[in-house]
Amino acid sequence: MRYTPAGVPMSGFVLGHESRQIENGIERSVMCELQAVALGEMAKALSAAVAGMKVEAAGFLAAKNQRSKMPVLHVTNIKFVEGIENGLQAEEKR
Amino acid sequence: MRYTPAGVPMSGFVLGHESRQIENGIERSVMCELQAVALGEMAKALSAAVAGMKVEAAGFLAAKNQRSKMPVLHVTNIKFVEGIENGLQAEEKR
Repeated sequence: MRYTPAGVPMSGFVLGHESRQIENGIERSVMCELQAVALGEMAKALSAAVAGMKVEAAGFLAAKNQRSKMPVLHVTNIKFVEGIENGLQAEEKR
Repeated sequence: MRYTPAGVPMSGFVLGHESRQIENGIERSVMCELQAVALGEMAKALSAAVAGMKVEAAGFLAAKNQRSKMPVLHVTNIKFVEGIENGLQAEEKR
């Protein structure tokens, strides 16, 4: 866990995705990786995660920084689908 | 418009996004660019688009290719929000 200059917990990670999708009427397999980041309570919730865990993550995409337009998923909602018996779910308080 | 080796119409473009989002309880501005691609009927629908048009696009993310894991949005649903009077909407037939 890192901290922003303002002392906010921050966690950076990579989400891997694999699924079957339909494109132009044809089913195809899909793989992708997405850089992701979580701040504050979300970062704390993620400290329980272990590499390879199945999760459902939601949030918004933002450019990595001024120089790199690489999209990074800012996670505001995460659900551990596997690995934690009580299935931890963390959601950004609005 | 390009065509795949199998002769399927294919259109590649860049989606720009700007919005305000809430992260860790704080509102912030967000900008990002996402490479996008459309195949078949979706590519044809996009041939009416002009750079700068406002659209709502949905689909799935997939890695650009074996070497580049850069996520590309494969568009399966697009709605022109501005610029075409009758507001063209094209959706992948399931």
